[in-house]
Amino acid sequence: MLVQKYKDMLSGKSVIRQLSEFATARGKEIGYENVFDYSLGNPSVPVPQEFTDIMITMLQKESSIALHGYSPSLGIPSVREKVAASLERRFGIPYRAEHIFMAVGAAGALAHAFRLVTEPGDEILTFAPFFPEYHPYVDLTGARLQVVPADTEQFQINFEAFEEMLSPKTMAVLINTPNNPSGIVYSAETLQKLAQVLRDKSVEYGHDIYLISDEPYREIVFDGVDAPCVSAYYDNTIMCYSFSKSLSLPGERIGYVAVNPACKDAADMVQMCGQISRGIGHNCPPSIIQLAVAEVLDKTAELSVYETNMNILYKELKALGFTCVKPDGTFYIFPKALEEDAKLFCEKALRYNLVLVPGDTFGCPGYFRMAYCIDTEKVERSLTALRQFVKAEYGA
Amino acid sequence: MLVQKYKDMLSGKSVIRQLSEFATARGKEIGYENVFDYSLGNPSVPVPQEFTDIMITMLQKESSIALHGYSPSLGIPSVREKVAASLERRFGIPYRAEHIFMAVGAAGALAHAFRLVTEPGDEILTFAPFFPEYHPYVDLTGARLQVVPADTEQFQINFEAFEEMLSPKTMAVLINTPNNPSGIVYSAETLQKLAQVLRDKSVEYGHDIYLISDEPYREIVFDGVDAPCVSAYYDNTIMCYSFSKSLSLPGERIGYVAVNPACKDAADMVQMCGQISRGIGHNCPPSIIQLAVAEVLDKTAELSVYETNMNILYKELKALGFTCVKPDGTFYIFPKALEEDAKLFCEKALRYNLVLVPGDTFGCPGYFRMAYCIDTEKVERSLTALRQFVKAEYGA
Repeated sequence: MLVQKYKDMLSGKSVIRQLSEFATARGKEIGYENVFDYSLGNPSVPVPQEFTDIMITMLQKESSIALHGYSPSLGIPSVREKVAASLERRFGIPYRAEHIFMAVGAAGALAHAFRLVTEPGDEILTFAPFFPEYHPYVDLTGARLQVVPADTEQFQINFEAFEEMLSPKTMAVLINTPNNPSGIVYSAETLQKLAQVLRDKSVEYGHDIYLISDEPYREIVFDGVDAPCVSAYYDNTIMCYSFSKSLSLPGERIGYVAVNPACKDAADMVQMCGQISRGIGHNCPPSIIQLAVAEVLDKTAELSVYETNMNILYKELKALGFTCVKPDGTFYIFPKALEEDAKLFCEKALRYNLVLVPGDTFGCPGYFRMAYCIDTEKVERSLTALRQFVKAEYGA
Repeated sequence: MLVQKYKDMLSGKSVIRQLSEFATARGKEIGYENVFDYSLGNPSVPVPQEFTDIMITMLQKESSIALHGYSPSLGIPSVREKVAASLERRFGIPYRAEHIFMAVGAAGALAHAFRLVTEPGDEILTFAPFFPEYHPYVDLTGARLQVVPADTEQFQINFEAFEEMLSPKTMAVLINTPNNPSGIVYSAETLQKLAQVLRDKSVEYGHDIYLISDEPYREIVFDGVDAPCVSAYYDNTIMCYSFSKSLSLPGERIGYVAVNPACKDAADMVQMCGQISRGIGHNCPPSIIQLAVAEVLDKTAELSVYETNMNILYKELKALGFTCVKPDGTFYIFPKALEEDAKLFCEKALRYNLVLVPGDTFGCPGYFRMAYCIDTEKVERSLTALRQFVKAEYGA
């Protein structure tokens, strides 16, 4: 018999994917250049040339048996060492290879982190607005994802709601900063306060509460913004990183879990990730990609286009009267819709070939997300459509 | 709190890995060329040059955004089409793209297959001798792996024991042919009989029993052996394939699930794999490796060295008086030890720098495995050590 829970999931299609499919279909009708597709968070800039060069050199020079051989299940030792050294250099935290577990992208890293610290029935708290895939990621482990309502003023943390929702069942708190979909970076003040609550509640409940920090947008931070390192604020932090966005290679599935050396049992936790892998069929990320990424750890793709796009959009949105918190990073912006029902708002936008995603999907109704990882030229052309849309539908 | 079951697993070290570590340590003492390390099943031949050439050409010519972009969660459509077409061409079964789910190696493919058809408490039967990782793979899903004792005469299936162990809780049967560790291919007769039992029991129990066919050694079959295609014998077959051995790239984590088109709900099953992925953090195998492998589907690495090695070893083992079924394929051979306790036998072999793995690990005590994916020159040199060992310890 096929397992019903997975069969049932087939009917629930992702809103983002549906919108993206609409954009593709509409593009076939009127030319894709005329569809302003802000639906998908796919990097739009090339990988650094160094990455490509290293891949080619390895393929030309290395023994293919060594190059494509099994990686140990925790990752290739030299790669783990380089990742640890890079983290120590950047954040001043004494990471060592034993704290690093190489994972197949952020999804793989999170799959391990959740299983490390929760059993079926336990709770993980996260904060709206949040990446909607967190739901299947967590729910399918048997744990439960609980969503704390958004602080819609600043998209920091709604601490009042958070403290009400914490319970002895809370084994972990999951954050994502810089944030998808708000584009906001959690401030040092927010992280300090969060850490204090977690420390207090760990004592009160008599068990550690882990902070799982999903950081795929860490390198996409805009001018003047100070993005604090989450692990520096709270000992029991499990960092989940992906190179998908920083190096523009989401398809190659490469990232890592970095357990804060200050975690009790830090090295054991990484070893446990290796055991978790056996149950969920990972084993290791691709060897050649591990080796290539290790050579460009402190590089990024040319990410400045995202800031350029953000500035253009933010300025226009404000001029059109939108309520909107200026993004600190990522390639998302999350303005308030011009009517209460953001789904209706986004539906109307489609008439102007603007593909926007309603905030309901991110646990924050009344707002909408624009993923501006598209060409700047297209962002500029989309402004006319945006103006027409707002004027015609909302008389602004 | 860290999850205890994973913590507990840290103390139980794999016998194969311990032996491999012994071989490495001993190699440092006496030179690795003097250690006859038959412990690990790592391919020892280069990838086909075509694979390397295609990788380099893509890296040089393709847009990096397209090349390294997200793969849809079921795999890149053109890759799935090519895999289906290749299977149809080779086995005459009408596979289409909708029956193919690209997975991160055989471990990833199996992780999806198990979750497709079992829930916690259900049982999966497999046959000794078997790949020991099946235990954590299955057990960590919450299902239970039950091992049917071996047919030690031919290493086909012990049907008497099998039928006794089948129960209404049996949701799937897991086979591996060509087999690790025996090297044996299940005959057409075995597969026919197995299919008939499964059909009968599916009717009797009122639910389908799925056949999960783990086929990473499919292309390593020796001269004169006819390796029947499992899916041709039983409709409800879920094929789990990996390119690790056929193309010699185990580190790149690429394989697939192919659901027999004759399965009820075949296309739904592949879609369900996409949902399972969300829970276990896969998403897709690396894009560039998918694209490269799709161009060499009908090629293999130069696998003939494995047959050469097998013939040398088989001849010598027989000459030394070992009971041994001649392998049909893979790079394993599984002779009977010269004393009842194969662990003791393998311990004694270490004195002669022969690293052999006791059959207990594979659910078949009294036998031992040699993984002869090493240089032929070394196989030849190992014969002297083998003769000395047998003569000194067993007076043969």
